[in-house]
Amino acid sequence: DQGSPAQSTSDFESGLKDDDRLDLRIWLRLLTCANMIERRVRQNLRTDFDTTLPRFDVLAQIDRAPEGQPMQELSRRLMVTNGNMTPLVDRLEEEALVVREPSAKDRRVQHVKLTDEGKSALDAMIPENKRLVSDLMRYVDRDRASELYDLLGDLKESILKSEAGK
Amino acid sequence: DQGSPAQSTSDFESGLKDDDRLDLRIWLRLLTCANMIERRVRQNLRTDFDTTLPRFDVLAQIDRAPEGQPMQELSRRLMVTNGNMTPLVDRLEEEALVVREPSAKDRRVQHVKLTDEGKSALDAMIPENKRLVSDLMRYVDRDRASELYDLLGDLKESILKSEAGK
Repeated sequence: DQGSPAQSTSDFESGLKDDDRLDLRIWLRLLTCANMIERRVRQNLRTDFDTTLPRFDVLAQIDRAPEGQPMQELSRRLMVTNGNMTPLVDRLEEEALVVREPSAKDRRVQHVKLTDEGKSALDAMIPENKRLVSDLMRYVDRDRASELYDLLGDLKESILKSEAGK
Repeated sequence: DQGSPAQSTSDFESGLKDDDRLDLRIWLRLLTCANMIERRVRQNLRTDFDTTLPRFDVLAQIDRAPEGQPMQELSRRLMVTNGNMTPLVDRLEEEALVVREPSAKDRRVQHVKLTDEGKSALDAMIPENKRLVSDLMRYVDRDRASELYDLLGDLKESILKSEAGK
Protein backbone atom coordinates (compact mmCIF):
# COMPACT_ATOMS: atom_id res chain seq x y z
CA ASP A 1 0.00 0.00 0.00
CA GLN A 2 2.72 2.42 -1.10
CA GLY A 3 1.76 6.06 -1.12
CA SER A 4 -1.58 5.26 0.48
CA PRO A 5 -3.68 8.16 1.76
CA ALA A 6 -3.71 9.53 5.31
CA GLN A 7 -6.66 7.27 6.18
CA SER A 8 -4.34 4.29 5.64
CA THR A 9 -4.47 1.60 8.29
CA SER A 10 -0.73 0.93 8.02
CA ASP A 11 0.72 -0.51 11.21
CA PHE A 12 3.29 -3.00 12.50
CA GLU A 13 1.71 -5.76 10.43
CA SER A 14 2.01 -3.94 7.09
CA GLY A 15 4.24 -5.63 4.54
CA LEU A 16 4.60 -8.95 6.36
CA LYS A 17 5.48 -11.77 4.02
CA ASP A 18 3.20 -14.82 3.69
CA ASP A 19 5.83 -17.12 5.11
CA ASP A 20 6.42 -15.04 8.23
CA ARG A 21 5.72 -17.22 11.22
CA LEU A 22 2.56 -17.25 13.25
CA ASP A 23 4.47 -16.33 16.42
CA LEU A 24 5.86 -13.18 14.86
CA ARG A 25 2.44 -12.28 13.44
CA ILE A 26 0.86 -12.67 16.86
CA TRP A 27 3.47 -10.42 18.39
CA LEU A 28 3.05 -7.70 15.77
CA ARG A 29 -0.75 -7.83 16.01
CA LEU A 30 -0.53 -7.68 19.80
CA LEU A 31 1.73 -4.63 19.54
CA THR A 32 -0.59 -2.99 17.02
CA CYS A 33 -3.63 -3.43 19.28
CA ALA A 34 -1.76 -2.32 22.40
CA ASN A 35 -0.46 0.78 20.61
CA MET A 36 -3.83 1.75 19.17
CA ILE A 37 -5.53 1.51 22.57
CA GLU A 38 -2.68 3.25 24.35
CA ARG A 39 -2.71 6.14 21.91
CA ARG A 40 -6.40 6.75 22.57
CA VAL A 41 -5.98 6.45 26.33
CA ARG A 42 -3.09 8.95 26.27
CA GLN A 43 -5.11 11.43 24.19
CA ASN A 44 -8.02 11.08 26.54
CA LEU A 45 -5.96 11.61 29.69
CA ARG A 46 -4.29 14.65 28.18
CA THR A 47 -7.47 16.25 26.85
CA ASP A 48 -9.83 15.51 29.72
CA PHE A 49 -7.52 15.45 32.74
CA ASP A 50 -4.34 17.23 31.66
CA THR A 51 -2.30 14.23 32.83
CA THR A 52 -0.06 11.52 31.39
CA LEU A 53 -0.37 7.75 31.14
CA PRO A 54 2.54 6.97 33.52
CA ARG A 55 0.97 9.21 36.18
CA PHE A 56 -2.41 7.57 35.73
CA ASP A 57 -0.85 4.08 35.81
CA VAL A 58 0.94 4.83 39.08
CA LEU A 59 -2.16 6.26 40.79
CA ALA A 60 -4.33 3.34 39.57
CA GLN A 61 -1.81 0.75 40.73
CA ILE A 62 -1.39 2.39 44.16
CA ASP A 63 -5.17 2.38 44.50
CA ARG A 64 -5.29 -1.39 43.99
CA ALA A 65 -3.49 -1.91 47.31
CA PRO A 66 -5.48 0.39 49.64
CA GLU A 67 -3.33 -0.52 52.64
CA GLY A 68 -0.28 0.76 50.74
CA GLN A 69 2.58 -1.09 49.06
CA PRO A 70 6.38 -0.82 48.98
CA MET A 71 7.97 1.03 46.06
CA GLN A 72 9.58 -2.21 44.91
CA GLU A 73 6.23 -3.96 44.56
CA LEU A 74 4.79 -0.95 42.74
CA SER A 75 7.69 -1.00 40.25
CA ARG A 76 7.17 -4.71 39.62
CA ARG A 77 3.46 -4.29 39.03
CA LEU A 78 4.10 -1.52 36.54
CA MET A 79 6.98 -3.48 35.03
CA VAL A 80 9.44 -0.60 35.29
CA THR A 81 12.66 -0.12 37.22
CA ASN A 82 12.76 1.50 40.69
CA GLY A 83 14.93 4.20 39.13
CA ASN A 84 12.13 5.16 36.74
CA MET A 85 9.45 4.95 39.41
CA THR A 86 11.08 7.15 42.07
CA PRO A 87 10.90 10.55 40.30
CA LEU A 88 7.29 9.90 39.29
CA VAL A 89 6.25 9.11 42.86
CA ASP A 90 8.32 12.07 44.19
CA ARG A 91 6.39 14.37 41.89
CA LEU A 92 3.01 12.90 42.89
CA GLU A 93 3.98 13.30 46.54
CA GLU A 94 4.92 16.98 46.00
CA GLU A 95 1.49 17.48 44.50
CA ALA A 96 -0.06 15.81 47.57
CA LEU A 97 -1.68 13.05 45.50
CA VAL A 98 0.29 10.28 47.25
CA VAL A 99 2.15 9.86 50.57
CA ARG A 100 4.93 7.57 51.68
CA GLU A 101 4.50 6.22 55.21
CA PRO A 102 5.91 3.34 57.28
CA SER A 103 4.11 0.01 56.78
CA ALA A 104 1.80 -1.06 59.63
CA LYS A 105 3.40 -4.52 59.60
CA ASP A 106 7.02 -3.42 59.41
CA ARG A 107 7.86 0.18 60.31
CA ARG A 108 11.19 -0.07 58.48
CA VAL A 109 9.39 -0.44 55.13
CA GLN A 110 7.96 2.67 53.45
CA HIS A 111 4.56 2.16 51.80
CA VAL A 112 3.04 4.37 49.13
CA LYS A 113 -0.65 5.28 49.52
CA LEU A 114 -3.11 7.65 47.86
CA THR A 115 -4.16 10.80 49.69
CA ASP A 116 -7.86 11.77 49.64
CA GLU A 117 -6.96 14.22 46.90
CA GLY A 118 -5.17 11.50 44.91
CA LYS A 119 -8.13 9.18 45.37
CA SER A 120 -10.61 11.72 44.05
CA ALA A 121 -8.37 12.65 41.09
CA LEU A 122 -8.21 8.96 40.21
CA ASP A 123 -11.93 8.41 40.80
CA ALA A 124 -12.63 11.01 38.14
CA MET A 125 -10.33 9.32 35.61
CA ILE A 126 -11.12 5.64 36.05
CA PRO A 127 -14.72 5.50 34.77
CA GLU A 128 -13.76 7.61 31.76
CA ASN A 129 -10.84 5.30 31.02
CA LYS A 130 -12.97 2.15 31.34
CA ARG A 131 -15.61 3.68 29.11
CA LEU A 132 -13.01 4.41 26.46
CA VAL A 133 -11.52 0.90 26.53
CA SER A 134 -15.00 -0.68 26.41
CA ASP A 135 -15.89 1.61 23.54
CA LEU A 136 -12.86 0.44 21.53
CA MET A 137 -13.75 -3.22 22.19
CA ARG A 138 -17.49 -2.95 21.66
CA TYR A 139 -17.55 -4.70 18.28
CA VAL A 140 -15.90 -7.86 19.67
CA ASP A 141 -18.53 -10.51 20.36
CA ARG A 142 -18.68 -11.11 24.15
CA ASP A 143 -17.97 -14.84 23.89
CA ARG A 144 -15.01 -14.14 21.69
CA ALA A 145 -13.77 -11.46 24.10
CA SER A 146 -13.84 -14.05 26.88
CA GLU A 147 -11.94 -16.47 24.68
CA LEU A 148 -9.39 -13.75 23.84
CA TYR A 149 -8.84 -13.14 27.55
CA ASP A 150 -8.22 -16.88 28.11
CA LEU A 151 -5.86 -17.18 25.15
CA LEU A 152 -3.85 -14.17 26.31
CA GLY A 153 -3.63 -16.10 29.58
CA ASP A 154 -2.07 -19.02 27.69
CA LEU A 155 0.40 -16.62 26.12
CA LYS A 156 1.31 -15.06 29.46
CA GLU A 157 1.81 -18.52 30.99
CA SER A 158 4.04 -19.52 28.10
CA ILE A 159 6.21 -16.41 28.44
CA LEU A 160 6.58 -16.90 32.21
CA LYS A 161 7.39 -20.59 31.76
CA SER A 162 9.92 -19.86 29.04
CA GLU A 163 11.55 -17.12 31.19
CA ALA A 164 11.67 -19.46 34.20
CA GLY A 165 13.49 -22.08 32.10
CA LYS A 166 16.33 -19.65 31.24
CA ASP B 1 0.70 -10.25 47.24
CA GLN B 2 2.19 -7.54 49.46
CA GLY B 3 5.87 -7.82 50.16
CA SER B 4 6.23 -10.71 47.76
CA PRO B 5 9.75 -11.84 46.84
CA ALA B 6 11.78 -10.74 43.82
CA GLN B 7 10.49 -13.73 41.82
CA SER B 8 6.99 -12.27 42.11
CA THR B 9 4.95 -12.27 38.92
CA SER B 10 3.37 -8.91 39.76
CA ASP B 11 2.28 -7.02 36.67
CA PHE B 12 -0.46 -4.76 35.31
CA GLU B 13 -3.10 -7.30 36.29
CA SER B 14 -2.11 -7.48 39.97
CA GLY B 15 -4.76 -6.30 42.41
CA LEU B 16 -7.64 -6.16 39.92
CA LYS B 17 -10.99 -6.45 41.62
CA ASP B 18 -13.38 -9.27 40.71
CA ASP B 19 -15.92 -6.87 39.32
CA ASP B 20 -13.49 -5.15 36.99
CA ARG B 21 -14.79 -5.45 33.49
CA LEU B 22 -13.66 -7.98 30.93
CA ASP B 23 -12.61 -5.21 28.53
CA LEU B 24 -10.28 -3.68 31.06
CA ARG B 25 -8.88 -7.09 31.96
CA ILE B 26 -8.18 -7.84 28.31
CA TRP B 27 -6.37 -4.55 27.92
CA LEU B 28 -4.19 -5.08 30.99
CA ARG B 29 -3.35 -8.65 29.99
CA LEU B 30 -2.53 -7.48 26.48
CA LEU B 31 -0.22 -4.81 27.92
CA THR B 32 1.41 -7.32 30.25
CA CYS B 33 2.19 -9.73 27.41
CA ALA B 34 3.39 -6.97 25.08
CA ASN B 35 5.67 -5.59 27.81
CA MET B 36 7.12 -8.95 28.74
CA ILE B 37 7.96 -9.78 25.12
CA GLU B 38 9.28 -6.30 24.42
CA ARG B 39 11.56 -6.38 27.44
CA ARG B 40 13.16 -9.61 26.22
CA VAL B 41 13.52 -8.32 22.67
CA ARG B 42 15.19 -5.10 23.91
CA GLN B 43 17.62 -7.06 26.09
CA ASN B 44 18.46 -9.33 23.21
CA LEU B 45 19.09 -6.49 20.75
CA ARG B 46 21.30 -4.70 23.26
CA THR B 47 23.30 -7.74 24.28
CA ASP B 48 23.75 -9.42 20.91
CA PHE B 49 23.72 -6.49 18.49
CA ASP B 50 24.41 -3.40 20.59
CA THR B 51 21.32 -1.75 19.14
CA THR B 52 17.90 -0.49 20.27
CA LEU B 53 14.35 -1.57 19.52
CA PRO B 54 13.37 1.65 17.66
CA ARG B 55 16.38 1.24 15.36
CA PHE B 56 15.56 -2.39 14.72
CA ASP B 57 11.89 -1.56 14.09
CA VAL B 58 12.80 1.10 11.54
CA LEU B 59 15.22 -1.15 9.66
CA ALA B 60 12.74 -4.07 9.66
CA GLN B 61 9.91 -1.90 8.43
CA ILE B 62 12.02 -0.32 5.66
CA ASP B 63 13.00 -3.82 4.57
CA ARG B 64 9.34 -4.79 4.12
CA ALA B 65 9.06 -2.35 1.20
CA PRO B 66 12.18 -3.22 -0.84
CA GLU B 67 11.37 -0.60 -3.48
CA GLY B 68 11.48 2.07 -0.76
CA GLN B 69 8.69 4.01 0.94
CA PRO B 70 8.02 7.64 1.83
CA MET B 71 8.82 8.77 5.40
CA GLN B 72 5.13 9.40 6.01
CA GLU B 73 4.20 5.79 5.24
CA LEU B 74 7.07 4.55 7.42
CA SER B 75 5.84 6.67 10.35
CA ARG B 76 2.31 5.32 9.93
CA ARG B 77 3.50 1.73 9.85
CA LEU B 78 5.49 2.22 13.02
CA MET B 79 2.63 4.22 14.54
CA VAL B 80 4.84 7.17 15.50
CA THR B 81 4.89 10.82 14.43
CA ASN B 82 7.06 12.08 11.57
CA GLY B 83 8.82 14.25 14.15
CA ASN B 84 9.95 11.18 16.08
CA MET B 85 10.91 9.28 12.96
CA THR B 86 13.11 11.92 11.30
CA PRO B 87 16.05 11.96 13.77
CA LEU B 88 16.11 8.14 13.84
CA VAL B 89 16.31 7.91 10.06
CA ASP B 90 18.86 10.77 9.94
CA ARG B 91 21.07 8.79 12.28
CA LEU B 92 20.71 5.55 10.31
CA GLU B 93 21.54 7.48 7.13
CA GLU B 94 24.71 8.94 8.73
CA GLU B 95 25.73 5.38 9.59
CA ALA B 96 25.11 4.37 5.95
CA LEU B 97 22.48 1.80 6.92
CA VAL B 98 19.71 3.57 4.97
CA VAL B 99 19.51 6.07 2.09
CA ARG B 100 16.87 8.56 1.05
CA GLU B 101 16.37 8.78 -2.71
CA PRO B 102 13.70 10.07 -5.09
CA SER B 103 10.87 7.61 -5.81
CA ALA B 104 10.98 5.91 -9.22
CA LYS B 105 7.28 6.78 -9.75
CA ASP B 106 7.42 10.37 -8.55
CA ARG B 107 10.83 12.09 -8.39
CA ARG B 108 9.40 14.75 -6.03
CA VAL B 109 8.83 12.12 -3.30
CA GLN B 110 11.82 10.93 -1.23
CA HIS B 111 11.83 7.20 -0.47
CA VAL B 112 13.79 5.51 2.30
CA LYS B 113 15.64 2.29 1.42
CA LEU B 114 18.15 -0.01 3.08
CA THR B 115 21.78 0.05 1.89
CA ASP B 116 23.59 -3.29 1.45
CA GLU B 117 25.16 -2.65 4.83
CA GLY B 118 21.75 -1.97 6.40
CA LYS B 119 20.36 -5.11 4.82
CA SER B 120 23.12 -7.31 6.21
CA ALA B 121 22.87 -5.75 9.68
CA LEU B 122 19.16 -6.51 9.65
CA ASP B 123 19.65 -10.01 8.22
CA ALA B 124 21.77 -10.84 11.25
CA MET B 125 19.13 -9.60 13.69
CA ILE B 126 15.90 -10.95 12.21
CA PRO B 127 16.41 -14.72 12.69
CA GLU B 128 17.58 -14.15 16.26
CA ASN B 129 14.54 -12.00 16.97
CA LYS B 130 12.12 -14.55 15.46
CA ARG B 131 13.76 -17.32 17.44
CA LEU B 132 13.32 -15.36 20.66
CA VAL B 133 9.63 -14.61 20.02
CA SER B 134 8.95 -18.25 19.08
CA ASP B 135 10.77 -19.36 22.18
CA LEU B 136 8.53 -17.23 24.40
CA MET B 137 5.40 -18.62 22.70
CA ARG B 138 6.46 -22.24 22.52
CA TYR B 139 4.14 -23.45 25.30
CA VAL B 140 1.03 -22.15 23.52
CA ASP B 141 -0.73 -25.00 21.70
CA ARG B 142 -0.51 -24.32 17.93
CA ASP B 143 -4.29 -24.42 17.40
CA ARG B 144 -4.78 -22.00 20.25
CA ALA B 145 -2.04 -19.73 18.87
CA SER B 146 -3.95 -19.61 15.57
CA GLU B 147 -7.14 -18.79 17.43
CA LEU B 148 -5.34 -16.06 19.39
CA TYR B 149 -4.17 -14.51 16.13
CA ASP B 150 -7.75 -14.50 14.81
CA LEU B 151 -9.19 -13.05 18.00
CA LEU B 152 -6.58 -10.28 18.04
CA GLY B 153 -7.82 -9.64 14.50
CA ASP B 154 -11.36 -9.17 15.89
CA LEU B 155 -9.99 -6.75 18.45
CA LYS B 156 -8.07 -4.77 15.85
CA GLU B 157 -11.19 -4.57 13.65
CA SER B 158 -13.24 -3.36 16.58
CA ILE B 159 -10.74 -0.62 17.44
CA LEU B 160 -10.55 0.56 13.83
CA LYS B 161 -14.34 0.51 13.49
CA SER B 162 -14.78 2.38 16.76
CA GLU B 163 -12.17 4.99 15.72
CA ALA B 164 -13.82 5.40 12.30
CA GLY B 165 -17.15 6.11 14.00
CA LYS B 166 -15.75 9.09 15.94
